[in-house]
Parts: sequence; C-alpha cells; structure tokens
Amino acid sequence: MDNRTQPPVRRIGLVVKPGEPRARAVVARLLEWAAERDLELFGNEQQQWDDLPIATVPADEFGTRSDIIVALGGDGTMLGVARLVAASGTPVLGVKFGTLGFLTEYTDADLFPSLEEVVSGSYSVDPRVTVHCVVERDGLPVSSAVALNDVVVNKSALARMIELDCWIDGLFVTNYRADGLIVSTPTGSTAYNLAAGGPILVPSMGAFVLNPICPHTLSNRPLVVPDTVNIDVSIRTRGESVMATIDGQLGFDLHSGDRILLRKSESTFKVITPRNRNYFQVLRDKLRWGGEITPPDR
Amino acid sequence: MDNRTQPPVRRIGLVVKPGEPRARAVVARLLEWAAERDLELFGNEQQQWDDLPIATVPADEFGTRSDIIVALGGDGTMLGVARLVAASGTPVLGVKFGTLGFLTEYTDADLFPSLEEVVSGSYSVDPRVTVHCVVERDGLPVSSAVALNDVVVNKSALARMIELDCWIDGLFVTNYRADGLIVSTPTGSTAYNLAAGGPILVPSMGAFVLNPICPHTLSNRPLVVPDTVNIDVSIRTRGESVMATIDGQLGFDLHSGDRILLRKSESTFKVITPRNRNYFQVLRDKLRWGGEITPPDR
Amino acid sequence: MDNRTQPPVRRIGLVVKPGEPRARAVVARLLEWAAERDLELFGNEQQQWDDLPIATVPADEFGTRSDIIVALGGDGTMLGVARLVAASGTPVLGVKFGTLGFLTEYTDADLFPSLEEVVSGSYSVDPRVTVHCVVERDGLPVSSAVALNDVVVNKSALARMIELDCWIDGLFVTNYRADGLIVSTPTGSTAYNLAAGGPILVPSMGAFVLNPICPHTLSNRPLVVPDTVNIDVSIRTRGESVMATIDGQLGFDLHSGDRILLRKSESTFKVITPRNRNYFQVLRDKLRWGGEITPPDR
Amino acid sequence: MDNRTQPPVRRIGLVVKPGEPRARAVVARLLEWAAERDLELFGNEQQQWDDLPIATVPADEFGTRSDIIVALGGDGTMLGVARLVAASGTPVLGVKFGTLGFLTEYTDADLFPSLEEVVSGSYSVDPRVTVHCVVERDGLPVSSAVALNDVVVNKSALARMIELDCWIDGLFVTNYRADGLIVSTPTGSTAYNLAAGGPILVPSMGAFVLNPICPHTLSNRPLVVPDTVNIDVSIRTRGESVMATIDGQLGFDLHSGDRILLRKSESTFKVITPRNRNYFQVLRDKLRWGGEITPPDR
Repeated sequence: MDNRTQPPVRRIGLVVKPGEPRARAVVARLLEWAAERDLELFGNEQQQWDDLPIATVPADEFGTRSDIIVALGGDGTMLGVARLVAASGTPVLGVKFGTLGFLTEYTDADLFPSLEEVVSGSYSVDPRVTVHCVVERDGLPVSSAVALNDVVVNKSALARMIELDCWIDGLFVTNYRADGLIVSTPTGSTAYNLAAGGPILVPSMGAFVLNPICPHTLSNRPLVVPDTVNIDVSIRTRGESVMATIDGQLGFDLHSGDRILLRKSESTFKVITPRNRNYFQVLRDKLRWGGEITPPDR
Repeated sequence: MDNRTQPPVRRIGLVVKPGEPRARAVVARLLEWAAERDLELFGNEQQQWDDLPIATVPADEFGTRSDIIVALGGDGTMLGVARLVAASGTPVLGVKFGTLGFLTEYTDADLFPSLEEVVSGSYSVDPRVTVHCVVERDGLPVSSAVALNDVVVNKSALARMIELDCWIDGLFVTNYRADGLIVSTPTGSTAYNLAAGGPILVPSMGAFVLNPICPHTLSNRPLVVPDTVNIDVSIRTRGESVMATIDGQLGFDLHSGDRILLRKSESTFKVITPRNRNYFQVLRDKLRWGGEITPPDR
Repeated sequence: MDNRTQPPVRRIGLVVKPGEPRARAVVARLLEWAAERDLELFGNEQQQWDDLPIATVPADEFGTRSDIIVALGGDGTMLGVARLVAASGTPVLGVKFGTLGFLTEYTDADLFPSLEEVVSGSYSVDPRVTVHCVVERDGLPVSSAVALNDVVVNKSALARMIELDCWIDGLFVTNYRADGLIVSTPTGSTAYNLAAGGPILVPSMGAFVLNPICPHTLSNRPLVVPDTVNIDVSIRTRGESVMATIDGQLGFDLHSGDRILLRKSESTFKVITPRNRNYFQVLRDKLRWGGEITPPDR
Repeated sequence: MDNRTQPPVRRIGLVVKPGEPRARAVVARLLEWAAERDLELFGNEQQQWDDLPIATVPADEFGTRSDIIVALGGDGTMLGVARLVAASGTPVLGVKFGTLGFLTEYTDADLFPSLEEVVSGSYSVDPRVTVHCVVERDGLPVSSAVALNDVVVNKSALARMIELDCWIDGLFVTNYRADGLIVSTPTGSTAYNLAAGGPILVPSMGAFVLNPICPHTLSNRPLVVPDTVNIDVSIRTRGESVMATIDGQLGFDLHSGDRILLRKSESTFKVITPRNRNYFQVLRDKLRWGGEITPPDR
C-alpha cells in the first residue's frame, strides 16, 4: 500500500456499469461538481452516454489521458476497467451503489466528500498484481489479455472433465483431470478461487494460486507459487470444447495442444483507497466472518 | 444385495465399449464358449460388430430378450447399458480390462470361470437406485432420461455462474448460484459428486445427494435427502447457456424457466456381483484408502 | 413429522440453561401461567432453582412424569435434555432467547401464545433419531450413553493424529488416521460434522455420517450409511490420550483396544414444532443461505 | 535453492530416530566409512548410543561443531533436528529407510554414494523458512520455540471448540471459533495443514498459512500471508484446556489471555538435496498425483 500524498488530480476518466439505473443522477452531479472545480471529466468512446453532455476520448487514449478513473458499478465493472488501464496503470476509484465490494472502496453516499480528498492528493493507492496471459497455437501467439482476478481454463457444459498439463518455470507439475484450472491473483483469491475451495491471499502477497476445479484426484489441492514464476498450461484433451476465460468476462476457444503462458504483468492495477483502510475489515464484511475486536493488550 | 440363487441363464446380450482394442479377442472366445454350452449370445443393432459373426436384435428388444447382459468396457460402458436396460431391469455383468471399476465387478482374467458360475445361477445381484429426470418447458415435458450416476445441471464454459431454484416435495430449499448442481445417486456418489466435495453414500442407502458445484455461498454444503422425495430444479439464469447432462453422456440444452423434475425410477439397475463381495474393499482399492484389517475381536 | 393432533398436556417438566440471566423472569411467568390453567409445572432435582417456588421430582422420574418438557436455553440445552428423556421419549419444546436454533423452535417472544396451542394438543412432533453408544473394554461394556447430535472419538491436544479401525455390520471399512472420527445423526449433521466438511442430512433421513476429522488420507471423505447398520470403531492408537465425547458434553477416556459400538436408539427424541414448519427455512436462516422464493409454477 | 558447490565436509553430526531397528547396521557402516576417509563422525549426548563406539558432543555444541548433520529416520526425525540446529543453521541430510519423505531426500540404498558426493561439496542446499514462536503471559514471555512445519493452537479432546483472536501486523483479522488454528510454513503446508483443507505452498514461497481447524464459520478459509508479517494469536476461551504444539512434538499449556507471537526465524533450516532435484516430483510421489510427463514442446 502506497500511503504517500499523491499528485493532484485534474483529469478524471469516467466509466459506468451499463444498465445501472442509479448511475445517471450521479453522473449529472459529477459533471456539475467537476465544472465548479474546473476539472476535466470525460468518458471513453466505447461507452454509450445517451444524452448526457459528457466529452469522450478514444478508448486507447482513455487511460493515459486520465489522472484517475472513477468507475461506477461493482467489482465486475472494476475488472473491465482493469483491462482498459492495463497499459497506462492509471489509478482507479471504484464506487458501488449500496454496499462495498472487494475492489470498490467507496459508496455513492460518501462519493463527493471522498472525491474532494482525492483531487487534493489525499488518498492511498493499493497496487494489485495482474496476470498476463498469452495463448500459443503451433508455437505462435494467437491471443493475449491481462486479468486482475483470474485466468480460468475450463470445460464446456457437456464435458465431464478435461485434461491439462502444467509446468512451472519449465518443470512439469502434474496433469490435471478436472472441470478446469483457475490461475488466480491475490485479488481473485476471494472470487472464483474461493468457491472452488482455494485459500485467501492477502493483496500484498506476491503469489498466484493454481486451483484445479473439481479435480478427479482428490490430493490435487490448490498450489500457491511465487508470482515471479512462469506458469504454462497446455491442453491435452482432444475433441472437447475447452475455453480460457479472463476475469469471467472474455473467452477464447482453445484447441488440443494449445499452450497458455501466464506471467505477472509489468504494471499493477492501482486501486484508490481511503487512508488507513484495513483489508481484514473488508474480509469480515464480505465473508460475514463476524468477530468483535478485543484490544490485543487487554 | 440379493444373495439368493438366481434363475439359470440361457440368453446373453453383449455390449462392447466402442474402440476397445482388447474386446475383439474376448468376443471371439465368448462366441465359442456360448456355442459349446448351447447358449444364445447376441448384440444389439446399435453397435457395430464389423465382421464378427454375432447375431443382433433391435435395441428396444435387447433388454427384454436377454437373461443377463455382459458389458465389456468400464464404468462408462455400464452407464450406457443402464439406459439400455432402464425399462427391462435385466441384470448386467460388467467386465473391465485390467483393473476393476466401481461398477465392473469382473476382469477379463476371471471372466470365463465367473461366467460358468453365473450361467448356473450362482451369483448375487446388487440393485442400484436410478433417477428419472424429466425436463419441463412451459409446463410440458420436452425430454426425459434415466441416470445411474447423476443428473448435472451446469453452466457453459464462459459463464461464471448460473442461478437455480430448488424445491423438495414442493418446499423451497434455496436458490443456488454456482457452476451447477449435481443430483447424485449412491452409485454416483463416488463419481463427479466426490470431485465436487460430496460425501460417499453406500449403495444400499436410500438417498440422493444435491451437491452444488463451486457455490458462491460457502455454506451451501451437499444435502442428503431420502430417495423418496420429489426434487424440482428450475433455471432462473437468463441469457446464459445451461445444460442438463445424464451420467456425463447425454446432454439437453436448457432455457430460462425450464424445470427439471427428478424422481427415483421404478426399476433398479441390477449389477451382477460375485458372492460375498464387499463394497468397502472396492472403496479401499479405488480411493487408495489403504488400511490393513485387524480382526475386530483381538 | 407427525402432524396429527397430540394428546392434551397437563404436566410440564421444566429445564433451564444454568446461568441464563433471562430465564428467571420467564420461569416466574410460567409458574403464574400454569397456576391459572391448573397445570402442573415442575423441575428436576438435578437443577438449582434458588428461591423460585417450583416443585421438583427426581431426575430419573422427570421424563416419565412429564407430558411435555419445556427447555429454556439453546441447542446445547436441548442436547442435555435429550439424555434426560432418552428412556421416556417425552416430547420437548425448546425456547431460545432472541433467535431460533436448529432444535429450539420457539423464542421467548412467542412462547406463551405457542404454549396455549401446545397444551390444547395443537402441535407437531418431529422425531429425531439418536445414537446409542457402548464402550467395550476387554469384551465388557464399561460405559454407555445416548447422543442426539454425535459421538466423537478424538485425540488430545498434543497428539498429531490417532488411528481408528472401523467396521460396518462386521465388514472392515478402513483404518482412519485422523484427528478423530465423528459419527453424526441427521440432527448433528449441521453441527460439528458441518465444520468438519460433512454433508447436511435432512432430519427425516434414516442415516448416519461417518466423518473423519482432518484425515491423513485425503480420499477418506465422509461416508453416509443407513441408520440400521451396526458401526464399530476400535482404538488402534497406543500410548496416546483418546476420548469419546457425547454431543460435546460428556467425555469418556478411551484405551488402546477399546471398541465403541454405535447403534440407532430404540426411541427417538421428539421435538415439538409449530404446525407447518419448514426445515429448509431453518437451514436458510441458520446457514445464511439467503435466497428469495420464486413460485415453482411461474 | 542454492546450487553452488558447497564447502567440503570434515565433521559429520549424526542423529538417529530412537527405536529404529535398521539404524544400527547403517551407523556401524558409517563409522567404518568415516574412519576410512579420516572424517569426524559424532553424535550428541542427548541420544542413547548403547554400545556403538561413537563419540558424542554436548547438544548445545552439536550444531556448531558439525559441517553437516546426517539424520537417519523420517520427516519426524528431521523436525526434531530442526530445533537442534535452529541457532547454528547447519545443513542436514535426511535419510529414510525405504521410501523418501517430504524432507528426507535420500534413502538408505543410495546413502553411501550420495555421501561421497556430499563430502566433496557436490550438493545443493534448500533453505526452508522456520517460524519463531513466543508465548506471552501477562505481557511477559514464558516460553519460546522454533517450528519447521507448524505451530498449532488447539483444543483438548473434550472441548467442542475454542475461541482465538488473530492480528496481523497489529490489524485485527477475526476471532476464530474452531478446533484450533494452524500457522504453517511452506514446508508444513503438506503436513497437518493439508489434512485440514489448506493449500500447498512451494518451499520457496515467502509465506505462512493461517488455517483454522474445523471453523464454525464456513467462510473462515485458509489465509496466506507474507512471511514478513507479525502474527499474534490470543486465547479468548476461558476455562478450557488449550495447548500450543510445535511441529506436533512439543506442547505448551496455554491460559486464557495468553498471546502467541509468531515471526519468521532469522535463520533457515537447510535441507541437503541432490543436484537438480524437483519439488514437483516429490509432490507427485507423496500425494500420488500420478501424471505422465508430456514434453511441453510437442
């Protein structure tokens, strides 16, 4: 967590969850708020803005032209923004209507006071490791993407299981016979990985989890490896439909023999957070851990 | 387990796993063996027999015309035979090349001595509950099938999760947000259900397991219910591809609003087993439990 | 579930959770309420009643002299009452202060209107299977008890694991190397068994779960067996402290070679429940399953 | 893994698993072998050597006076040696009779050829993180120890659960209600942690796992944290017997209010391994993952 004072903010990129009914009123207030403070506020051309009087910039310039990005939606919206800023590394402030998410650190209720602080440079940045994924076919790259949560290789609905070979830094790990394989970042550890029996990794953990989904061999437990390793997965299954999904949002069809090369991305996804925020509080809230605090030095 | 002496066997139906290279020699020996004993041996028309001089009967008469069926293959072959004999209830002797399976109680090595015993009526029958599944759309049945292991409702490769509502005897249980839902018989409890974290049910247990696959809510643990209940599952998810699979072999596409009605079948699947066979020995072998026996009365 | 009208109630036995501060006021009101209706209300001699003017009867007559028992406390109190009424089979109405438990079907808020109904015979009885446990040493019984939730054989704090042999109906199952073994009824399936990775069994399920705690062999999954079987567990570990616990409340020290014989009890524990009560609603509440009901016939 | 050529070996400390019947012959051969090569071979005074003509040194000088230590036994023996060399950091060569363990990289069959290589400096050293544990009572340290696998805080046999509060770097994490809590190193991740549902951490992972044993709250999943953090656990439970165990071998009784302070040790435990050894091969063997290697570049 970087707690230093950040550079002041002049240019704010805006992303809104499509179809979110409560977003329109917030955007209208944001436009006023930005005009009063002489701040630039703009969207990107890929998003529909209907009749909202908001300037737009090309999607490929959106990250670099923004000092920060404000995302209205939920954790799913943040995952989409992560791909948009993968190259620029622009910090992102996530706003959720109602309750907080794992990645959205602000609610609509506290948005405007928080923004005042943020534009003055008073905020923290929580850098999250992302994973860069390349699909190779016949030795040549055919697709690539960056994931904030996870890259999942999985079977189609009819298939009972698929077979995958896995290498770490060139060493053979095992061949998994399973519904699929989740390669999760610490950020993604509380998402699909958790549902599939994997551990929680605190966000600062420099690690990935390899978590086979419903493996045939019960001792194929989740495997935690340093995020500095090279993870290679190849598709051994023949004649079955297999797919790679990026953060549950993008999908690539895979063929037998395809290799998926997974590496830590060069840049991180920077989540804007309130000062003195506590990740364990997020866990207790979202996972309903409960637990009252007793002072350690009673 | 029915350990009484069974009626003698005159007519043997034969099913062979397609593409099994070791089957041809066994079939040739079976033909000789049957001719010497004046037994009828025949296949069904759905199977390719190449140049093997074996009589065939229509698939829909195959079960009723056989005193027993001999299946050469593995547990997967037995699952297919289960659908073939769902109406007739013909006992089935499963033969696996090499090692035994959960349902195949004989190997090719002990086949002929075992058959001698079986045709004389010296064998046990282990009746397995099967589940009858009907898909209803707009209140009308559109498909039905019988499963020996399990009926699975699951998501396509790209979807992150689907949403299902579940009722038992008309009482609402919960709505599952998960990769899918396995409804498993005791026979299926050691198959996909086990990989998905479910319990093992001994075959004589009159029960089904409802096991959500990677549920979003971690307390959605597998639920064991009597096999006399009515289980209804309806598809709440919209716009996602969802499928029902029968024993991992047959698939139906499902739509939002479809209901899957699951009931115990009227007849059981009858596995021919050696006398005095011990299910726990099968578990120890297949699941590598190890464990040396110490006499209980030391 | 027995939904018929029950015999009217004249004699009410009372059990109160020791140290429960809110109980005194309720007991005082119960004494008035019973006097007004000319009902007998009494406690048992094992319980301290301080200066409360309540009659007491000997503990061993308490069950037979009560038409019903009212237990003020929580699920733990109900477990204790289960041992008290193991022989008599007296129905028990459980009252919890605040929120409902798995076994306590009434809160203090609805107690008096509910009691009016109950004394008129308008209630249901949910019979729960209990397990009878005998410890044999050198072939002779040395201890016995009845459990409503579970019998647990487990290790002491220092021991890393213990070794147990298990037989079902005289057939060797396996030898478990684990922290211990839970033998759970359907009622107990949502208690310790659930924390140890076991399945949920609906209360009407005629089954027990054998659930090894942290087994060394990962494929030693929970095993569901009919409640008609004989389960024998013997202690193979030498030199370690091992204990059997009954519903987490009573403990017996076990020695190497001891056998624990587990059988379904002859009588059930009868939980008084409101008419038309729904077990799945209890599960949704206690396990926070959430889930909105959508009518099955939309 | 440090693959450089190591300094030559002149002084060899020897530790033998007590009661291991096959050890005596190996020790006799080792004495001959060392004498022929003019190497010092000695034991430590804590161990009984019967009539074997072996020199001994005081236990507290054993580590510093040895260039390497040879341990005959299994993983349990290695855990004991880890405490013996916690201060000196002497490399340890583990020998197991029969099959390899997770920490014993040599069998008795390959011992002497391997020792020739090792004394010439041709070996690798795999440094394993250990955890230093201090128990504080009323603010004062009352006990301390170093663990190679894990520190476990757990309940006695009768207790159903204990309650623990956990802090990481002074931030409150949660209070666990569970059978206990395992704090495991990567080395320990394949031991008790695995049986308790935790993930596997490759040995080079700079992390600890906090894994509650049978937690009452099902979302209390294992938590992976960097090994640079301070982990503090305090005992909230009153009136129950609670114990801390070090590698399953040493135990301390704990009181309500005690705090257990867990930190990475300053020195590592150095396992002597053959050159080019592959951790994943160990996993495949010990966990029976199976899996044939297919070359990545087919």
